[in-house]
Amino acid sequence: MTPQSTDDGIALGLDFGTESVRAAMVSIVDGREVGTASAPYRHGVLDRALPTGEPLGRHWALQHPHDWLDGAADAIRGALAHAGRDAHAIVGVGVAFTACTPLPTTADGTPLCDVPTFARRPHAWPKLWKHHAAHTDAEHLNTVAQARDESFLTYYGGRIGLEWLLPKALQVLREAPDLYAAAERFVEGGDWVVRQLTGRETRNACAAGYKGLWNADSGDPGEAFLAAVDPRLADFAQRTSGPIVAPGTCAGHVTAAAAERFGLRPGTPVSAATIDAHAGVPGAGVAGPGTMVAIMGTSSCQLAMADHPYRFEGFAGLVRDGILPGYYGYESGQAAVGDLFAWHLRECLPQEVVDAAARSHGGDVHALLSERAAHVPPGAGGVVALDWHQGNRSVLMDGALSGALVGLRLDTDAAQIYRALIEGTAFGARVIVEAYRDAGIPIDRLVVCGGLPRSNPFLTQVYADVLDRPLAVSASDETVARGAAIFGALAADAFPTPADAVACLGAPIARTVTPDPTRRDAYDRVYAIYRRLHDHFGRDARDLMHDLDALGG
Amino acid sequence: MTPQSTDDGIALGLDFGTESVRAAMVSIVDGREVGTASAPYRHGVLDRALPTGEPLGRHWALQHPHDWLDGAADAIRGALAHAGRDAHAIVGVGVAFTACTPLPTTADGTPLCDVPTFARRPHAWPKLWKHHAAHTDAEHLNTVAQARDESFLTYYGGRIGLEWLLPKALQVLREAPDLYAAAERFVEGGDWVVRQLTGRETRNACAAGYKGLWNADSGDPGEAFLAAVDPRLADFAQRTSGPIVAPGTCAGHVTAAAAERFGLRPGTPVSAATIDAHAGVPGAGVAGPGTMVAIMGTSSCQLAMADHPYRFEGFAGLVRDGILPGYYGYESGQAAVGDLFAWHLRECLPQEVVDAAARSHGGDVHALLSERAAHVPPGAGGVVALDWHQGNRSVLMDGALSGALVGLRLDTDAAQIYRALIEGTAFGARVIVEAYRDAGIPIDRLVVCGGLPRSNPFLTQVYADVLDRPLAVSASDETVARGAAIFGALAADAFPTPADAVACLGAPIARTVTPDPTRRDAYDRVYAIYRRLHDHFGRDARDLMHDLDALGG
Repeated sequence: MTPQSTDDGIALGLDFGTESVRAAMVSIVDGREVGTASAPYRHGVLDRALPTGEPLGRHWALQHPHDWLDGAADAIRGALAHAGRDAHAIVGVGVAFTACTPLPTTADGTPLCDVPTFARRPHAWPKLWKHHAAHTDAEHLNTVAQARDESFLTYYGGRIGLEWLLPKALQVLREAPDLYAAAERFVEGGDWVVRQLTGRETRNACAAGYKGLWNADSGDPGEAFLAAVDPRLADFAQRTSGPIVAPGTCAGHVTAAAAERFGLRPGTPVSAATIDAHAGVPGAGVAGPGTMVAIMGTSSCQLAMADHPYRFEGFAGLVRDGILPGYYGYESGQAAVGDLFAWHLRECLPQEVVDAAARSHGGDVHALLSERAAHVPPGAGGVVALDWHQGNRSVLMDGALSGALVGLRLDTDAAQIYRALIEGTAFGARVIVEAYRDAGIPIDRLVVCGGLPRSNPFLTQVYADVLDRPLAVSASDETVARGAAIFGALAADAFPTPADAVACLGAPIARTVTPDPTRRDAYDRVYAIYRRLHDHFGRDARDLMHDLDALGG
Repeated sequence: MTPQSTDDGIALGLDFGTESVRAAMVSIVDGREVGTASAPYRHGVLDRALPTGEPLGRHWALQHPHDWLDGAADAIRGALAHAGRDAHAIVGVGVAFTACTPLPTTADGTPLCDVPTFARRPHAWPKLWKHHAAHTDAEHLNTVAQARDESFLTYYGGRIGLEWLLPKALQVLREAPDLYAAAERFVEGGDWVVRQLTGRETRNACAAGYKGLWNADSGDPGEAFLAAVDPRLADFAQRTSGPIVAPGTCAGHVTAAAAERFGLRPGTPVSAATIDAHAGVPGAGVAGPGTMVAIMGTSSCQLAMADHPYRFEGFAGLVRDGILPGYYGYESGQAAVGDLFAWHLRECLPQEVVDAAARSHGGDVHALLSERAAHVPPGAGGVVALDWHQGNRSVLMDGALSGALVGLRLDTDAAQIYRALIEGTAFGARVIVEAYRDAGIPIDRLVVCGGLPRSNPFLTQVYADVLDRPLAVSASDETVARGAAIFGALAADAFPTPADAVACLGAPIARTVTPDPTRRDAYDRVYAIYRRLHDHFGRDARDLMHDLDALGG
């Protein structure tokens, strides 16, 4: 990480996250991170009101598109300064972006929220991936698609996700038809940023495939399906049409105006965008089948590649070339992981723990609770958590599901609940891994990335024990930005093959956590209880969960 | 409550609770509380270790018998001082005691924990009602009783409770057979106190009936049943045999030694003991059928009388003359109510709530949370709690059941959880009331007693709304001690009939809470969800709950 005065080229990876954008400069000679910087979004997540004060409904989550550009400009300049290099050293730029985060724009790419007549309308703003207010729309889309037995469903485990493009677009159409009519384009945030850099509109195959229901075989959902959903939706494909470009392909070159705004060299090649989590796979050093990569943060995303298209319950998306060219890429996910632990600390923290953490752990409540939870036996002393506090993304794909704590007693303490929540997310991961295994997809190795596994050895041990297999912990916090940098390097033709780029620029493994065989039987027993809760509330009594969700109003 | 220098007689009621003993002096002329006092037990509840340091297992709960006597001596003297009267004014003494709280003694009534060779043995000590470590024993007793279709089961809704006499005695036999052999008597705490006052051993019909499986028709469980449970248990009835005496009957008179120790007049009539909750019925002014009395404290107890013996699922005990002479007394209960809210505040309280309560409510977190929870709609914004944090006493009668919170989301806050817990206990009460209603027992009126309903108007409103009927809130915190005083007065023949004593000494009603009809439909919907959770975890998936309980070790 020490800036060095060499003249080796660097690839720039940009990682547009939920709260901030990160920039990483990675040497294309030896894969060193020569400079990194991040910039928070000035407006953060808009989940209560627009910047203009208009209130937002429950489950809404928007972003401000200016935050993306302002943040990127700051982060790029910061990373260059950190590297002690100038923009001429950058051989290519890659863009990784949370998805599905679409925004409605005019034909020339102007966000509708920048059009004065629409600025005070919530639907004019980019809907962040975790915008969950399109539940009704997702249900309707699923009903119609299942009734018509639409073939695209087979690419998505049979269900259209609440967070995806069509539910979000349908919500605009339903609730703000005039605004929908004015939205000549519905553009993924990543593609929109690439357009700001290059002046050209492209559509990245990763987001189009995983979130837009597009696939290489049959293209976008057909007009007949869209018309059956709502006649006014029939021409939706026109609002997204355009060249589909795979990540790593050059989408264009940095324009003079963009060079000035972002501190880049005009003419620098820019890769087509990709989804942040998916960039994490090459970024973690994985170039092919046999390894599952889990990006663990506020939520978790599990990704794997295979040589063949398997179809089974448990993946949220299957896209050819969706992670790296030449492979079928599979995505699964857990909607709340780090967010779940943060919820516990925010809403359920005894004063005694706060005081004890202040005395003995410098106020680090996570550290104290992890230490105490490590002394609780598997099964958290009889408490099992369903980790659905933000719905279930895999294998049930239902955002209206909610979390549960079962087994509470008057002597249940915060350390038990903390352990139950960590175990709950690990059981959720096991459901996913077992679904892949049962489908015949080879998973020989697990790589985990993100701040959570790097900072919490108790958590990684629980995961290794619950999954009963070794866990390789990535050494880098920048696997997503590294992955974006790999695509930037590929866009610049800096490597002959994607595998060569991954070998050079992928992050090393910091440590491997081995499962404790003495805990295997205990976790098998607790997992059996988790599975029964999972199947009851997720299948048999799903209507009860929906009734509960409806109480939330 | 102002002490007055009158010469009217007073009845003394003693209420031996979980943490303290209370004494109430009530005028037999006009029912005024002329003096009250309470004394905490010096050793509190022994749930971690004996006073001698020996550690206790999970779910254990013991008491120290000396605490009962020392506490009573202090409370009686305190109440007399408060009343400004002397012991000669006391016409009779009544004893209400938590049950089932039995202790093993020698033939002369010496507690085995006072015998030096046994003092360091946990099983030598009185097992408090909430001692829950006899789970295996209760299961075994139920299995044998059900296999033999024992007729006594029909008095108890078909199940022997975990907290009752035989499970506790069987645990002693199984885990400490030498100590069981030395225990010539197993005595209810209330009967033991009456023996200390009068020098005579009696057995009160209330505890014998509700907790000892005794009934007036067929007596104690038969030797064949006991032998089938364990051959060594065959002669158990000899360890409890003796005169069965109904509350209100004179059990004896205060001895000279007891007069000295407790500050009483020698020769004062002492009533047979009764169970604390059951004393609360006459204490609340209820003398016959048509009214259900709920004693709400750390746990809740629901009691009602009827002219006929109904048998249905939902009562924990049916005892002729068990509450007042001439009626069949029914008992149901909820094992955790106030304890549940206290658990929430102890283990799940956000710092923000603590800080806000300090700023705006003088640190009263209950007041702040109640105020906030009042703004949450019925159903707690989509969270439903199963209130089984200490098992379920009615209608499921299973101490190994545990609590649950279902419907948790990342935006669920402490006020929602607080409301969900209050609603959960109200739904638990509704299950009981509906079971009585469905059995045909007339319940026209509900009276609630205890500090909880007196201090928390939000809680009583939720109960009235959930139960959809008016709730009469007792004006007195001393309904149990008043009930004991009524029995003391009856033992002294101070009134011609129990109804006359109740009319004079029963507590008045402070206020009546009316249900809000606009919430009826909403609560019916939430209650339907609660019932499904109740029936799933309490019936269909009871084995899952037992697996969870086993994880606790």
